[in-house]
Amino acid sequence: MRTLIDLNADAGESFGRWRLGDDERLIPLVTSVNVACGWHAGDAATMRRSVRLAADGGTSVGAHPGFPDLTGFGRRALAMSPREAADACLYQFGALRAIADSMGVPVRHVKPHGALYGLTIKDEAVAEAVADAVAEAAPGVRIVLLAGPTADRVAAKGYPVVREAFADLDYDDAGHIIIEPDPVAKDPARCAEQAIAVLRGEVTSVGGTAIAVDADTLCLHGDRPNSVEVARAILDRFEAEGVRTAPLSEVADQRVR
Amino acid sequence: MRTLIDLNADAGESFGRWRLGDDERLIPLVTSVNVACGWHAGDAATMRRSVRLAADGGTSVGAHPGFPDLTGFGRRALAMSPREAADACLYQFGALRAIADSMGVPVRHVKPHGALYGLTIKDEAVAEAVADAVAEAAPGVRIVLLAGPTADRVAAKGYPVVREAFADLDYDDAGHIIIEPDPVAKDPARCAEQAIAVLRGEVTSVGGTAIAVDADTLCLHGDRPNSVEVARAILDRFEAEGVRTAPLSEVADQRVR
Amino acid sequence: MRTLIDLNADAGESFGRWRLGDDERLIPLVTSVNVACGWHAGDAATMRRSVRLAADGGTSVGAHPGFPDLTGFGRRALAMSPREAADACLYQFGALRAIADSMGVPVRHVKPHGALYGLTIKDEAVAEAVADAVAEAAPGVRIVLLAGPTADRVAAKGYPVVREAFADLDYDDAGHIIIEPDPVAKDPARCAEQAIAVLRGEVTSVGGTAIAVDADTLCLHGDRPNSVEVARAILDRFEAEGVRTAPLSEVADQRVR
Amino acid sequence: MRTLIDLNADAGESFGRWRLGDDERLIPLVTSVNVACGWHAGDAATMRRSVRLAADGGTSVGAHPGFPDLTGFGRRALAMSPREAADACLYQFGALRAIADSMGVPVRHVKPHGALYGLTIKDEAVAEAVADAVAEAAPGVRIVLLAGPTADRVAAKGYPVVREAFADLDYDDAGHIIIEPDPVAKDPARCAEQAIAVLRGEVTSVGGTAIAVDADTLCLHGDRPNSVEVARAILDRFEAEGVRTAPLSEVADQRVR
Repeated sequence: MRTLIDLNADAGESFGRWRLGDDERLIPLVTSVNVACGWHAGDAATMRRSVRLAADGGTSVGAHPGFPDLTGFGRRALAMSPREAADACLYQFGALRAIADSMGVPVRHVKPHGALYGLTIKDEAVAEAVADAVAEAAPGVRIVLLAGPTADRVAAKGYPVVREAFADLDYDDAGHIIIEPDPVAKDPARCAEQAIAVLRGEVTSVGGTAIAVDADTLCLHGDRPNSVEVARAILDRFEAEGVRTAPLSEVADQRVR
Repeated sequence: MRTLIDLNADAGESFGRWRLGDDERLIPLVTSVNVACGWHAGDAATMRRSVRLAADGGTSVGAHPGFPDLTGFGRRALAMSPREAADACLYQFGALRAIADSMGVPVRHVKPHGALYGLTIKDEAVAEAVADAVAEAAPGVRIVLLAGPTADRVAAKGYPVVREAFADLDYDDAGHIIIEPDPVAKDPARCAEQAIAVLRGEVTSVGGTAIAVDADTLCLHGDRPNSVEVARAILDRFEAEGVRTAPLSEVADQRVR
Repeated sequence: MRTLIDLNADAGESFGRWRLGDDERLIPLVTSVNVACGWHAGDAATMRRSVRLAADGGTSVGAHPGFPDLTGFGRRALAMSPREAADACLYQFGALRAIADSMGVPVRHVKPHGALYGLTIKDEAVAEAVADAVAEAAPGVRIVLLAGPTADRVAAKGYPVVREAFADLDYDDAGHIIIEPDPVAKDPARCAEQAIAVLRGEVTSVGGTAIAVDADTLCLHGDRPNSVEVARAILDRFEAEGVRTAPLSEVADQRVR
Repeated sequence: MRTLIDLNADAGESFGRWRLGDDERLIPLVTSVNVACGWHAGDAATMRRSVRLAADGGTSVGAHPGFPDLTGFGRRALAMSPREAADACLYQFGALRAIADSMGVPVRHVKPHGALYGLTIKDEAVAEAVADAVAEAAPGVRIVLLAGPTADRVAAKGYPVVREAFADLDYDDAGHIIIEPDPVAKDPARCAEQAIAVLRGEVTSVGGTAIAVDADTLCLHGDRPNSVEVARAILDRFEAEGVRTAPLSEVADQRVR
């Protein structure tokens, strides 16, 4: 069983007048945070607040670019070409990086959000275009993809891919995650169990299939009502099992060596 | 009379399906270009195209952040606080910089657009907040402000301000530019005359008042129907008068020394 | 003292993934509801939900058009011309009316939101343009304006104006309301007291000035954290004082007769 | 061969500062116009201008709702549920209707745009949800769908469907139109030929397959650079062949009788 992993959370998902997620409590619990960049959630002021929370909590910051769909929270598929998807990621990554730069905080990874993440799973050309664009714009910045064949192939081309698994989402029999449009509370103990399963290298799909998983980072959704409790349950379980969490760049470095 | 000045153009103002301006012909004529960053005009693909045109034409690239108002092309005043305005500039600057980074092209300046530019003239706190945010995020990147008392005060605080004057806009008696919501064709010869007036250090307002102007860069609007002709007329006149154009960073460096 | 008044609430201010306000509890308490129409808050699904709640609760429905500024929740001033403001109101009113029509529910009034409402107070040409556009498009649909000189003048021209006062906002010495960008909880008893003051025809400004108020409807903000408690306190007080609430069209009809 | 058909154009596709299409010349040539409603193109001022042009030219007005994607001009598929698609159509139809109402002009039909139109072809549940929503909100307002099996089934359920064919787009072997993201000039004579083929009841696909077509209206794209020339060529050919054009409601009435 692996004993080192990153725990990441999608956060900074408030927008203007609207609050979503409990970033004040969640961000300090995780080792990496994916900050929404304005297209599906997160305005400039929210981005600044999220980066501040992460810096204060010792949490590594990444960009969480999404489709330009505030109404659908970036969870509705949009037919973007690889070039469009790559530029969408660059645009949002750059926007966050400038705000973070003004606070002296580095942006260390890019993780596509929602249906854009789904597109990187289904269309390898999109995954590669995004990885390539980020590599051109910001060498060393990691790209987070779902642990699986696409991630392996993109990594094999030399891109700094970090493989991700999910503690709070179910997997289908093809090994794809099942995205909830509107996440509800989940049993923290069950999420912790799945986190351990990921560390052991195998999760069970909703259909009962064993899915091999080789992941450097585990994701939690900040817009799940009990995300803080889920994070705490996972961390408690990790402590009991002797698992340590560290920012994804550190975990990914270990893999390389 | 000054014999060195930057000639800048607002460009990259197409959006999605819509084309505006003749960037292919205009960008190579000027020494600096202000690229719209998506909030009032310019989507990611347009930004990429503009940066490519600038790089190919030897034109220095800057960001042209605006209010989030596509319908009004960023030319309607919006009540933003200094902090909001600064973050709006950072967000858009960063978005452009990431796209330019992916092409190996530096972004050397930030010039607010339209009514946001107007706000920096009227509200010194906004001008300073923007300058400060850019300085924090990207030391060395210049901030372009209307040549005048506000620009002088912000520069006096140590920010790398580049003073701008306009060849294709009228001035009111207070020395402010009169922004046209929907620019029409202007007499190229008259614009060239005003360009020379700027180099001589004094323009005449619509009311007949002499306005002292000390500018490092001269602006042209890319959405003016005959902007290319205006640029050519100015350059021809410059050649006749022995005036050389150079990117704004180079011109600003000369001022300092 | 008046013994009949409409109690209206701004509601339907959720957007996509984000929830705001407690419409399920608030809408049945009031006699008229102003439903956000998508530009500052409220997407089509939220609009449908709000209309359904109103219809089920016997609450009269109106449109609550705002500036196109989701980030600022329509509370930042935007320089719109009277024609632009009128068309913005028509567009949003029409959008809501079609959704309501599909449910067999009439839309009986239009009340501008936030900074657009502020613009109708400060610029009578805007107030009149909005009233005129609504009258052309939907004769009989009421237009809600702040009780005061502008409303009186627009009403005097024959437009079906409903005069509004506020139970949960302070007044400045000029008789204008003081808009809070981000409403906080208010003392319900104090709001109830101000409601009674409105019925008596005079409120006291923050500076201690007596402001004469002649209003047919009283507003509550649905995005105030304790808006339901405020509504209950007002209704309890009304019951104690023998005041009856009724939809604004009914109250306005009484005035005319 | 049919001798009566509607000729419709997608128009009103300018947005804010950007102009697209030659509505002044195109709208008077056609018998029905589909006016963009703000989500993929067309702002409130543009909508007003288009309705005025149509009213002055004796052209029947319809709404042309699209996906909320200005950047992609509504031509990128977005995963909307039938309910979301129906509400999107209602929202935009209502917005246009209110503006048209203020000018005394009726809105007689709804025709989804671009990828939303594509969705009504591929997903009958979407086509029916849209037809149902429009029927609930505005009985008698026609819904325009691609002539073919989906349209036939929706019509068979009693909805006032108008079947559409295309003079300026190619068909694939399945009888679906091939949408161009960025329409280019087309040979007017060839479009006129295809218009006549539609009237004869059969077009030929790009693969050479004969596609039976039974259409009440023929579409032209206003954003095609030579759309006016295409319209003129079709009308000249119609005159030569003794074909008359009439607004789509009139043509559809003939079918029913």
